[in-house]
Amino acid sequence: MRRLGVIGAGQLARMMVSPATELGIDLRLLAQDSTDSAAQICDHVVGNPSDIDAVLAFARTCDVVTFEHEQVPQSVIKNLERNGIKVYPRSDSFIFSQNKVEMRKMMDSLDLPNPYWQEYSGGPSEISFPLIAKTITGGYDGRGIFVVNSQSELETLHQSIGQNLLLEEKLVFDSEIAIMVARSPHGQAATWAATWTVQENGICSTTVTPIPNISDELATSATSIALKIAQGVSLVGVMAVELFKVGDHLIINELAMRPHNSGHWTIEGARTSQFEQHIRAVLDLPLGDTSMTAPWAVMGNILGGEKNDMYRPYLHLMARTPALKFHHYRKEVRPGRKIGHVTLLGENLVELQHEVQHALDYLSGAVDE
Amino acid sequence: MRRLGVIGAGQLARMMVSPATELGIDLRLLAQDSTDSAAQICDHVVGNPSDIDAVLAFARTCDVVTFEHEQVPQSVIKNLERNGIKVYPRSDSFIFSQNKVEMRKMMDSLDLPNPYWQEYSGGPSEISFPLIAKTITGGYDGRGIFVVNSQSELETLHQSIGQNLLLEEKLVFDSEIAIMVARSPHGQAATWAATWTVQENGICSTTVTPIPNISDELATSATSIALKIAQGVSLVGVMAVELFKVGDHLIINELAMRPHNSGHWTIEGARTSQFEQHIRAVLDLPLGDTSMTAPWAVMGNILGGEKNDMYRPYLHLMARTPALKFHHYRKEVRPGRKIGHVTLLGENLVELQHEVQHALDYLSGAVDE
Repeated sequence: MRRLGVIGAGQLARMMVSPATELGIDLRLLAQDSTDSAAQICDHVVGNPSDIDAVLAFARTCDVVTFEHEQVPQSVIKNLERNGIKVYPRSDSFIFSQNKVEMRKMMDSLDLPNPYWQEYSGGPSEISFPLIAKTITGGYDGRGIFVVNSQSELETLHQSIGQNLLLEEKLVFDSEIAIMVARSPHGQAATWAATWTVQENGICSTTVTPIPNISDELATSATSIALKIAQGVSLVGVMAVELFKVGDHLIINELAMRPHNSGHWTIEGARTSQFEQHIRAVLDLPLGDTSMTAPWAVMGNILGGEKNDMYRPYLHLMARTPALKFHHYRKEVRPGRKIGHVTLLGENLVELQHEVQHALDYLSGAVDE
Repeated sequence: MRRLGVIGAGQLARMMVSPATELGIDLRLLAQDSTDSAAQICDHVVGNPSDIDAVLAFARTCDVVTFEHEQVPQSVIKNLERNGIKVYPRSDSFIFSQNKVEMRKMMDSLDLPNPYWQEYSGGPSEISFPLIAKTITGGYDGRGIFVVNSQSELETLHQSIGQNLLLEEKLVFDSEIAIMVARSPHGQAATWAATWTVQENGICSTTVTPIPNISDELATSATSIALKIAQGVSLVGVMAVELFKVGDHLIINELAMRPHNSGHWTIEGARTSQFEQHIRAVLDLPLGDTSMTAPWAVMGNILGGEKNDMYRPYLHLMARTPALKFHHYRKEVRPGRKIGHVTLLGENLVELQHEVQHALDYLSGAVDE
């Protein structure tokens, strides 16, 4: 059998463990710490993903290496490639997931819909205020993203960050959507149904799949954008393409070349989950069926709050909603941190949304029954 | 969180690992050997399930203890109970899964349909020949079961076994069916759709769920038999009830109080798998939804044969049948040993059966394309 190395040991690596086990693939993680979510239940080595020697030594014990997060320097990935390690996505693909300016340039070159954007190194902004400023690397879950209302605010931010920024027009959008796409080294590609990602305070709270009240044209357009990007960046593995819906148009927001929160619904909601598909793709196995197992899939993120016990709420929630599926990441609870998620499948969307919201409220302590 | 101890570390324990992980339950196994199927991927202690002290020491590190196989002596289980360990099923339930004569007596007392049977300790048989003779304890997968054609054969067998035998009439049956049932300490019970178990050489080769061409009355009867047994034996956990269909009648064949081969289809085919349900039941959590995720589920067992490599066949089989799900037990290959299974869900039963049979033939080396 093959041994697949994953750099990172958070919940995304944790959710790769089940499909790897079923396929009989050995999974080995490069964890920051043995208490990391996935390291608790999986073979791992403790090491720093920025340590060029540690990552190479880890990779040499694996047949193929992939990523669970973007915090691996290009120099580290290129060093693996120079040493003949099979690492997917390749450094020249992964850069578009790591560097937002490179991503914007690539979208322009693929003639795909960007917002107005500018790499900012000082001077007057070319984008009108209010605008969105982003750190070019390293941001996630709303971190590294700022609304900037004036030139003076922009200059203050630029000084405090101390690096170039990506500026983007602040779009007035109807909704945020995401589409997961997978691609293998052979070029076989597959998408899942597009997903409505409901955001609160810059963090995804729930997702609904497929997107309610969207035209077939727009859903098809999202799929074709995702496939075009996957081919354009020579993706190997799975990728989330996050989009803004503005009237009848889609505009690209972010890319993430790894299993992604907006694809968690696929664990129960699709015949092949994003996690199994990622494993298949990076091992160059044929991709699995992505069709849905129910008309609707609703996923809700459990954020760390006042209640720290996720076990006791099972008694009420499992009795109330027997079809609710729980995913517990076993992470240390910190306010606002994603510590788990729930998924519910069925035919009545309003009811599914109601039950998922109740579960989230009950788990957070906002309601008692 | 809770720590659940499982006595045994074969493929049944292996398939408990994924749902335990998702629920955030710590699973700890008592394995015969660190190379056992489940021990390869799960926290475990090496020990003999017949060693009264080893099992107690193991159990004291867990909140609840359960079983993956029947090879745990009653004395060992009773010792756990005397020491205040929560162990499910209880010894006075588990006996009906361990001892075929006790099982027959209980079915009679519940007024449920037994074949003619007799505990045989010598002398002339009360059952007419040919008959079925079984070892009273320890048999599985066709082992410990004998067709006996004459009194002299019976006496020879009895001498060679050296213990009492269970004799049963040799039924002429239409098909073998199984129904999985779960029950919690609170008495909440749930069944899944009944399953047609296709046997070859005394080993289950494929299963089809729901049972094709069965009357609603008979399917309902199977469900009510399973629920009656679950209550009658005070089941906690999941149990397989294996039945013979003889015309319009059902006759009880075997019980197994643990996740069972005839319920493997539930991993993808039901909203709650038998493995998750077993965990929920023994932890006294509310039971999950057992409804099916597709009209039909076909499961096929992969038996060890001439081909020892289960990985290379993925290339062909995943490309041919993108919806096929693989379960690799990572067991040492021995001829006839169950080393994995595949499951396929969908709407066209004939096509599903054809694809599963092709996969089994290809994996065994019987066909090359």
